[in-house]
Amino acid sequence: MAEPRIHHFDPNRFRWDGVDERDYKFHQGAEAGWGWRDVTRHVLTGRDDPAAFEMRYFEIGPDGHSTLEKHRHTHAVTIARGQGKVLLGDRVIGARPYDFIYVPPHVPHQFVNCGPQPFGFFCVVDRERDRPQALSPDELTRLTAVRETAAVMRL
Amino acid sequence: MAEPRIHHFDPNRFRWDGVDERDYKFHQGAEAGWGWRDVTRHVLTGRDDPAAFEMRYFEIGPDGHSTLEKHRHTHAVTIARGQGKVLLGDRVIGARPYDFIYVPPHVPHQFVNCGPQPFGFFCVVDRERDRPQALSPDELTRLTAVRETAAVMRL
Repeated sequence: MAEPRIHHFDPNRFRWDGVDERDYKFHQGAEAGWGWRDVTRHVLTGRDDPAAFEMRYFEIGPDGHSTLEKHRHTHAVTIARGQGKVLLGDRVIGARPYDFIYVPPHVPHQFVNCGPQPFGFFCVVDRERDRPQALSPDELTRLTAVRETAAVMRL
Repeated sequence: MAEPRIHHFDPNRFRWDGVDERDYKFHQGAEAGWGWRDVTRHVLTGRDDPAAFEMRYFEIGPDGHSTLEKHRHTHAVTIARGQGKVLLGDRVIGARPYDFIYVPPHVPHQFVNCGPQPFGFFCVVDRERDRPQALSPDELTRLTAVRETAAVMRL
């Protein structure tokens, strides 16, 4: 029987005992939207756990952002700290702690920190999942043509 | 393309827009540990979503508790509000907001609110999962024989 795992939370550091901080992604791609800035990844459950999902905590520093991407697998996102904006399809969502955001298959999305504090969120994904893709030139053109999305997206 | 879903959080009510409150379970079983008290269930992602997992928020009122149960599927639990105790295998864990608890296969567990405030937590499970089972008489005897676990367990 596998041992239970407890990661107590330290509110002063906003970190969990026994959970390592890792790079968000290992490579920065050359395609538009494939860059990211000031993002850390904390794996709460991962590939070694016998579950159909993985749960991660991501934290984006001031002026940081995730990649602008799309994929077949879904995201179940719960905001944990700070305030950010989420580019989601053709909309921009303001996000605060405990807001819940469901990203369905193939919907382009990007998480952007617009404030002075870290912007952190839990994100649950399928264990078996497809690789994220960059947006098509047509998709990028559409997002760039609308002021609301153009103001938030980071390429 | 399915529509994104945003459930904004209302900190005054500690509830999400558009997320219904449901009973925790529909039946109270007759077996020892199969009872529960003052628990609500809030489905953030569910069976209609194309993912391998489901994400729920449970809230236990003062003096309430979940069932004492075990099963093959795992739980990834993040505390959201209040303070509680978690019976986990042969241990008792004190749990506060953002503490993370991983319940591996077959480990008996029960969530107990020992305080005056609601005790709430997110819980992620596999979409395809086995039914919870009551503990065996031997398991109940072991937990009852140890003061630490006997003080927390609710039968």
